[in-house]
Amino acid sequence: VPDDSPFPPGGLPLGVFTPGTSRGRKRVGAALGDHVLDLDAAGHLTGRSWTRLFAAPSLNRLLAAGPAAWGEIREWLLETVSTRTDSSGLHDHLWPRSQVRMHLPFQVADYVDFYSSEHHAANVGKILRPAGQPLLPNWRHVPIGYHGRAGTVVPSGAPVYRPKGQYLPDEASTPEYGPTQKLDFEAEIGFVVGVPSQRGEPVPTGRFDQHVFGVCLVNDWSARDLQAWEYVPLGPFLAKSFCTTISPWVVPLAALDRARVPAPPRTVPTLEYLSIDEDWGLDIDIEVELNGTVVSRPPAADLYWTGAHQLAHLTANGASLRTGDLYASGTVSGPEAAQSGSMLELAWNGSRPLQLPDGTERSWLQDGDTLTLRASAPAEDGGRLGFGEVMGTVEPAP
Amino acid sequence: VPDDSPFPPGGLPLGVFTPGTSRGRKRVGAALGDHVLDLDAAGHLTGRSWTRLFAAPSLNRLLAAGPAAWGEIREWLLETVSTRTDSSGLHDHLWPRSQVRMHLPFQVADYVDFYSSEHHAANVGKILRPAGQPLLPNWRHVPIGYHGRAGTVVPSGAPVYRPKGQYLPDEASTPEYGPTQKLDFEAEIGFVVGVPSQRGEPVPTGRFDQHVFGVCLVNDWSARDLQAWEYVPLGPFLAKSFCTTISPWVVPLAALDRARVPAPPRTVPTLEYLSIDEDWGLDIDIEVELNGTVVSRPPAADLYWTGAHQLAHLTANGASLRTGDLYASGTVSGPEAAQSGSMLELAWNGSRPLQLPDGTERSWLQDGDTLTLRASAPAEDGGRLGFGEVMGTVEPAP
Repeated sequence: VPDDSPFPPGGLPLGVFTPGTSRGRKRVGAALGDHVLDLDAAGHLTGRSWTRLFAAPSLNRLLAAGPAAWGEIREWLLETVSTRTDSSGLHDHLWPRSQVRMHLPFQVADYVDFYSSEHHAANVGKILRPAGQPLLPNWRHVPIGYHGRAGTVVPSGAPVYRPKGQYLPDEASTPEYGPTQKLDFEAEIGFVVGVPSQRGEPVPTGRFDQHVFGVCLVNDWSARDLQAWEYVPLGPFLAKSFCTTISPWVVPLAALDRARVPAPPRTVPTLEYLSIDEDWGLDIDIEVELNGTVVSRPPAADLYWTGAHQLAHLTANGASLRTGDLYASGTVSGPEAAQSGSMLELAWNGSRPLQLPDGTERSWLQDGDTLTLRASAPAEDGGRLGFGEVMGTVEPAP
Repeated sequence: VPDDSPFPPGGLPLGVFTPGTSRGRKRVGAALGDHVLDLDAAGHLTGRSWTRLFAAPSLNRLLAAGPAAWGEIREWLLETVSTRTDSSGLHDHLWPRSQVRMHLPFQVADYVDFYSSEHHAANVGKILRPAGQPLLPNWRHVPIGYHGRAGTVVPSGAPVYRPKGQYLPDEASTPEYGPTQKLDFEAEIGFVVGVPSQRGEPVPTGRFDQHVFGVCLVNDWSARDLQAWEYVPLGPFLAKSFCTTISPWVVPLAALDRARVPAPPRTVPTLEYLSIDEDWGLDIDIEVELNGTVVSRPPAADLYWTGAHQLAHLTANGASLRTGDLYASGTVSGPEAAQSGSMLELAWNGSRPLQLPDGTERSWLQDGDTLTLRASAPAEDGGRLGFGEVMGTVEPAP
């Protein structure tokens, strides 16, 4: 494993792949350096009961198995990649990453998107309500969120069709229907739920790691003109539901121990159900690349509401969890302009277009643009571990 | 079949049941008079390939089979219940409805809730924004909707736990967390998607009945105090996500031919993708019963946006459909006070409590209250057909 690999031996994120160009069945793998370890094949060497979880077209069965199984699997995996030698047969089960096809890592049950970055929420407030307070009165009390469309969560690389929809042209009083003129991305981290909960039983912040298996990267593509016209009073709908892209790899929480940091200090007291004993801020640095140029570096460590807050809030009304639930942080933005997680903020609603090295500029994403998210976090060995890419190219509206 | 049965031979809604008190496996049945016809057992008499769709714990496989199969199955079913006699063996497969247990009829993929009743939207406007126009500027152009939580859609009879959440007490500036003080119901009809669509390809209004199998009844339980505090700017979230109850029976569109009526006239021109050639208004009369007293009769025929409009809008941005998608109309309210589909409207936000025959009054639902929805529509034979009950009893917050 090369020293600067995003997939060091202490990371071992899990995903679902098919090897080679074959039409072979999907199976669970772990990323290691430039390779993918076929866990279905390698696991058979152990004779353990959980190896059956690897012969599956999604991580869902493994997610449902819960923290004890996750721990055993990770222990075996760490041991395996650190001690086995070629003679053990492990190398027979390593596929070059360039020769595998990655799939959606899990079947998404419900998808929730939060709004947890204070910098993002304040930027949006400044842009859309320049005369008012940047943050709405509820923001420091409520981890604001909404349900998105689970059926349009797609794996990295899937085409992103420019959505059509209703928008109100400048100075018009009636809407038009057509391709969005304000296509945006949103750089986010996502939490993947493994263990379900019962309806009527809130999950306290302290049980976050008993339910959540790990973290992926998320691009919640957005159409800002559709959003502006439709969002009153029930929130964003078609502006978001056309596509959400996630990373092929889910990094187990257990691999993120070194990334754990305190959440930013509370600026007003939070209600008791949102108090927290453990640090679940995550020092994950995101990188946003547009057509090959890095345009932003949003820092997830800045998120005001952590994954543990979000989970406690999501279930505070007794809503139950299912295996495969995905909830994302909302756009991650830092305090600096070059740390913004959306075009809306980077080009300040079109008022200061982004200059690209090819001499063009962007206020919003154009057809043919390729947007790629990457991220890294501190790893056990002092290096950094990655999440894989979240890549999407904008196709013209069909 | 008794003449006034909600389940006449021309209705034949489908659901999922287990017979008797046994722990037998779930299977597909049709409601007929006071009985449930075991389609898994009866279907074997036909030797047709689609009988395998009945040996399933949900309608999803049948839903996915598409309109040709739906038509064949309905034809066989109509023929079967009209001509077979006891000697045919059909009676061996009829279970008294009182002796079966009904389940969630289908696995819900994504759940969307619209806001399609003009009377409801205007009532909400008058209550919450008394100084402004009752309808927001986008309402007559956009079938407003949002995604709800699919994982908390439950079958009739499941307990409804009073949700806790954040709300802002009167004249307070900081929120409290506790059981909702404003628990409400919402009487709605729901559309059940059978045939999926491709991402990037909107489904035009004219293809509504190629994708939608049928209609169920929906109670979208709501917590108005949570909603008021959380809904800006991303819409309702915990105020809705704790529970949504649906009827055990899905009435096929094919059984609703006589119920089809024109939608109310457009008061402003709609965009082309929302124009419609066929009438898909549905003359479904809903009845709301609180603790045994009928308190309202909302008329679904009044819905401004029909199921066909809703489907075209839902997919107008290229969002794909999956088998098992459920989208509901939003609260159905008619022009009269006694046609309101929510407590919010019936008691006008607490300002004129509902008087019940037991001498008590209600502004909102109390612990122990039982709320039941029923509905009927014109049937082929001149009678009326039903949807079964949507019943829920409010349990104290755990």
